[in-house]
Amino acid sequence: MISFASDYITGAHPKILKRLAETNLEGLSGYGTDPYCEQAKEKIRQACACPDADVEFLVGGTQTNLVVIATMLQDHEGVIAANAGHINTHEAGAIELSGHKVIRLPYADVKIFPEDLECYLEAFYEDENHEHMVFPGMVYLSHPTEYGTLYQKAELEEIAEICHKYDIPLYLDGARLAYGLMSHETDLTLADIARICDVFYIGGTKAGALCGEAVVFTKNNKPKYFMTSMKKRGALLAKGWILGVQFDALFTDGLYEEIGRHAIDMTEQMKEIFRKHGIRFYLQSPTNQQFMILENSQIETLKKTVDFSFWEYYDEEHTVVRFATGWSTTQEDLDHLDAQLEALKI
Amino acid sequence: MISFASDYITGAHPKILKRLAETNLEGLSGYGTDPYCEQAKEKIRQACACPDADVEFLVGGTQTNLVVIATMLQDHEGVIAANAGHINTHEAGAIELSGHKVIRLPYADVKIFPEDLECYLEAFYEDENHEHMVFPGMVYLSHPTEYGTLYQKAELEEIAEICHKYDIPLYLDGARLAYGLMSHETDLTLADIARICDVFYIGGTKAGALCGEAVVFTKNNKPKYFMTSMKKRGALLAKGWILGVQFDALFTDGLYEEIGRHAIDMTEQMKEIFRKHGIRFYLQSPTNQQFMILENSQIETLKKTVDFSFWEYYDEEHTVVRFATGWSTTQEDLDHLDAQLEALKI
Amino acid sequence: MISFASDYITGAHPKILKRLAETNLEGLSGYGTDPYCEQAKEKIRQACACPDADVEFLVGGTQTNLVVIATMLQDHEGVIAANAGHINTHEAGAIELSGHKVIRLPYADVKIFPEDLECYLEAFYEDENHEHMVFPGMVYLSHPTEYGTLYQKAELEEIAEICHKYDIPLYLDGARLAYGLMSHETDLTLADIARICDVFYIGGTKAGALCGEAVVFTKNNKPKYFMTSMKKRGALLAKGWILGVQFDALFTDGLYEEIGRHAIDMTEQMKEIFRKHGIRFYLQSPTNQQFMILENSQIETLKKTVDFSFWEYYDEEHTVVRFATGWSTTQEDLDHLDAQLEALKI
Amino acid sequence: MISFASDYITGAHPKILKRLAETNLEGLSGYGTDPYCEQAKEKIRQACACPDADVEFLVGGTQTNLVVIATMLQDHEGVIAANAGHINTHEAGAIELSGHKVIRLPYADVKIFPEDLECYLEAFYEDENHEHMVFPGMVYLSHPTEYGTLYQKAELEEIAEICHKYDIPLYLDGARLAYGLMSHETDLTLADIARICDVFYIGGTKAGALCGEAVVFTKNNKPKYFMTSMKKRGALLAKGWILGVQFDALFTDGLYEEIGRHAIDMTEQMKEIFRKHGIRFYLQSPTNQQFMILENSQIETLKKTVDFSFWEYYDEEHTVVRFATGWSTTQEDLDHLDAQLEALKI
Repeated sequence: MISFASDYITGAHPKILKRLAETNLEGLSGYGTDPYCEQAKEKIRQACACPDADVEFLVGGTQTNLVVIATMLQDHEGVIAANAGHINTHEAGAIELSGHKVIRLPYADVKIFPEDLECYLEAFYEDENHEHMVFPGMVYLSHPTEYGTLYQKAELEEIAEICHKYDIPLYLDGARLAYGLMSHETDLTLADIARICDVFYIGGTKAGALCGEAVVFTKNNKPKYFMTSMKKRGALLAKGWILGVQFDALFTDGLYEEIGRHAIDMTEQMKEIFRKHGIRFYLQSPTNQQFMILENSQIETLKKTVDFSFWEYYDEEHTVVRFATGWSTTQEDLDHLDAQLEALKI
Repeated sequence: MISFASDYITGAHPKILKRLAETNLEGLSGYGTDPYCEQAKEKIRQACACPDADVEFLVGGTQTNLVVIATMLQDHEGVIAANAGHINTHEAGAIELSGHKVIRLPYADVKIFPEDLECYLEAFYEDENHEHMVFPGMVYLSHPTEYGTLYQKAELEEIAEICHKYDIPLYLDGARLAYGLMSHETDLTLADIARICDVFYIGGTKAGALCGEAVVFTKNNKPKYFMTSMKKRGALLAKGWILGVQFDALFTDGLYEEIGRHAIDMTEQMKEIFRKHGIRFYLQSPTNQQFMILENSQIETLKKTVDFSFWEYYDEEHTVVRFATGWSTTQEDLDHLDAQLEALKI
Repeated sequence: MISFASDYITGAHPKILKRLAETNLEGLSGYGTDPYCEQAKEKIRQACACPDADVEFLVGGTQTNLVVIATMLQDHEGVIAANAGHINTHEAGAIELSGHKVIRLPYADVKIFPEDLECYLEAFYEDENHEHMVFPGMVYLSHPTEYGTLYQKAELEEIAEICHKYDIPLYLDGARLAYGLMSHETDLTLADIARICDVFYIGGTKAGALCGEAVVFTKNNKPKYFMTSMKKRGALLAKGWILGVQFDALFTDGLYEEIGRHAIDMTEQMKEIFRKHGIRFYLQSPTNQQFMILENSQIETLKKTVDFSFWEYYDEEHTVVRFATGWSTTQEDLDHLDAQLEALKI
Repeated sequence: MISFASDYITGAHPKILKRLAETNLEGLSGYGTDPYCEQAKEKIRQACACPDADVEFLVGGTQTNLVVIATMLQDHEGVIAANAGHINTHEAGAIELSGHKVIRLPYADVKIFPEDLECYLEAFYEDENHEHMVFPGMVYLSHPTEYGTLYQKAELEEIAEICHKYDIPLYLDGARLAYGLMSHETDLTLADIARICDVFYIGGTKAGALCGEAVVFTKNNKPKYFMTSMKKRGALLAKGWILGVQFDALFTDGLYEEIGRHAIDMTEQMKEIFRKHGIRFYLQSPTNQQFMILENSQIETLKKTVDFSFWEYYDEEHTVVRFATGWSTTQEDLDHLDAQLEALKI
């Protein structure tokens, strides 16, 4: 079975696995106090062109979101997100568990548009009853979004400007940032993101690590005693160097970019294959996730030899499904997909 | 200054105040363990034609909502509400503070329509990723709604049927239930509500009490050690008999109905006055809150002699404002309003 | 039945009830935005000799504790309390519900001793693992304590000094402050308390109000948007003037002191009666609560005509019970108690 | 530098690392839905002689404690623990963050003694005010304890019996269970633990895994939708098979026992070395952690060549330090320690 089910179907990139094996017996201090974490943080600061950034390693994406958001919001605040935002849909209410509302921005289905955001914030403070309401205390967006689309530099800058006007941080969820940065259609670099956002995370799990996400606080704004807040949420890994070693590898000799670039190359080929076979695109995604509209009967047949993900119902006879590539996607995988789609036609 | 700002601008109905004074020195046991609470509960059970109901008294509406919802939901669940639902807008995130999401029902702006609800629940369980999402664990609706509109018996029954099909309770917020029950356009009695809903509350604060709401659990479904859960949320009044005495008065000799009926009568006259002066109705409300579209300049003038509430912006030149009547609204108040509106025309 | 069960067995002091009746129909704005709240706050500021204090009214003691503590602690912090502290024992876990630990101070059973506190704080920061632990973020004490005892001025000053050395606020729970201030054995005035503590509350419920507590933030340290945080916890009363009117009455013409003084006078007579009948004191309390050791058989008999509270088991044959006086305790009550104790001997 | 700082200073046991590498490219489904998780669960059920057990994998110990406790307690309940219990001391308030109190059992410093437990529970329900208090809803203990000591079978059975009498679950934290099971002084098998406890976890992190703990629900008592509750707390690993593969390895060919036995053997030799050099034992620990009393000056010197952990202050001149062995402790490590202690004497 060939799988395009997600970008986290295989373990660690061989270079990462090698480093984990090499450091396995070193005898390191726990909870992220080891030299590999230090070294990885420094490399990330350099890659971000942000020498003062505070970097912290967490295990997974939902965990990262919940710790960052819970510790940066004040009691009276909630976090603004698009309707499809991961924190609003597929994190089982993790943000609400921290006592904070995910504030839905009207009209923002997948992306947050600057004008909608400004409009919302203005109306909030003009509402005479706003002290009975949840204050907007942060803007959360993911880049790429849940549908693989991207923000352009000008958009992100405009959103940041609005955030700063209202004195709230802009938080970018970069679970799949590697694929956004290497997309052929982006004008954003990692340094841009570090400059524009107040806090963001560089996803490891979906970019070739066994696990791990690196949060970057770019404006000397890391919450006080963040380590204690991590521990309080079960988010402090005992053998913390596992995360440091992996991010150290990812940010050595351009591995992170290499992983992103490979997946984007594979995706462009995959898109060509879909086009060749006349498969409809649900939307135009310039990153590693492609959302395709298939007939339900096609899905039945294809599923026997290719793994992919259910996304949402399209109409009675069609379903939107997702095909994702990743660091381990191979030419053979694509050839197999091509052949299976060909067979589908008959 | 004459005020139509809300239905909680004056203290207690004279009959209630009298009973508070009469019982003031009796020397009663605290935390709701006194005989007046017992007596009031029994009267409420009778009024609901629900002899097995469990009744508990709380101080205010938000408090009631947060205690009931937090104790009835399970960890993986959230509560479905309309977009304008009080818990979703004007409770400052109280439900989220309890760790639970308020699930917005698509298309439900003010009322919950049975077909939307069913559609949502069906789609939820069909979604292959639903174990990563917040489970719908309760339906919350207010009656009258935030805009003074009402559910008809058939609608409420249909919603309840869907809830029971999915094994989740139906919770009715009755902050202004008195006005719903006495509306000229309702076919629902208190007994109907008790029969149809799993839990609801009878609002006291907005119906002539100093404070106090009576929660009614109708299906032997009061959470275990509910008193402890109230205490844990600062919701257990030391001099609990204050609530018992007030509800005892409200449910003696039909005072609760009398209060509702009086406000509805006043409202019907007020609507006539608005019509006479050509003031536009934002929507048709059959209860004690009327939402009127006024020119911003009219508002400026009127505000000098009449108090009413900002509701929301309508367009550049108009605003929606709310006029509410209550137990203490008088004929003089209406005559004053009539005169002021007349003066506005010139 | 004559009752010494608690200081909250009767309603409001007649002067308070009178003011509630007089203002009942005024038509006031909600949520504490009325002029009576303003006026009461100003009178409290004057009584505290603290013209810059921020005063807020809440409904009950547990509610006050949970809102103040939750909004003043940071994520990594907990609150230090004595073992018998109300927040540690009889609030059903309200502080923990806010996500914060009540840190037990070793050796502090009822009162907090400065040396223990300093020792704890010093050891905490010396512990190499303290970032894995709950940081001490506030000191909570009640005055009078749960056993009616008092802090002397020097003690309180010493505790405050330690708090400030470690940059944490000192919070005084004054549920029964009236009786502490009027005790014959105190050297603390309300102004002293306002000067020494960072935040404290003046209890209304147990000092002649129907309900209500006044929180005083003395160091320009009221949490931002405190009203929103109150609302989020169901602690914002719709008819907020009920609290304002009551505290206005309490702080007019010395009513608060009068209530405290009366109860202390009654208590001193009650203590004399106990001594006369040879009833053993569990401890020396200079305030309105007296803890007496009675034989279990005496309790059985006495309970038939006098109401008092179970406190704790003493030994197989004896129990500690509490007798409390309050604003409504009368000479007749004391005579009755005297007679019943006399009858007990035979 | 030779390190006895903890049992989590090195990565994974070679057999585990090998299996991670072998399965690295398989293309597995996420979130623990892969066949390795299934297989590991089955092996654990067999090792526990509990064919109906529900097994779930989490990443770390604090995370496991907080998810299990939060989902098994009811709203009005807290969890009983010894004073030194990990959840009461070194988890930064994770249990309180879930809204539940850690109830300190009087007199239980390190271990919970059955008689104290029974006494506490009896007194709780006899207290007339207990509905204002946090109900005891679970007993938490760790085995080995925080000081490396053990429960005997009869003790554990007696505790379980008391728990069941009061209808609350017994939860055993087995972070270091491997070392408890292989201790020369235990009469408990894994099957005994599964039979006696309602829920427990088998620690992986401290027993040769990179990360991972296996929770075992033994009485058909896994909370409903536990996966959703894990996700809600950021505790659901995307590449979940990493945990499955590791536990599969640990429970294949007796690796888990082998790891435990090796550390115990190393510890017995280490204890001999300490005795030989006249180093004082703080207490008698039959497991892999040894608590030694060293002079502060000795610590200064020894620290230059041997790593160990600060535990607590003993007196002005002495400190309690911890030496731990683990799966990767070698004979060379012990020889080095021996030589350094010898050198210390001069």
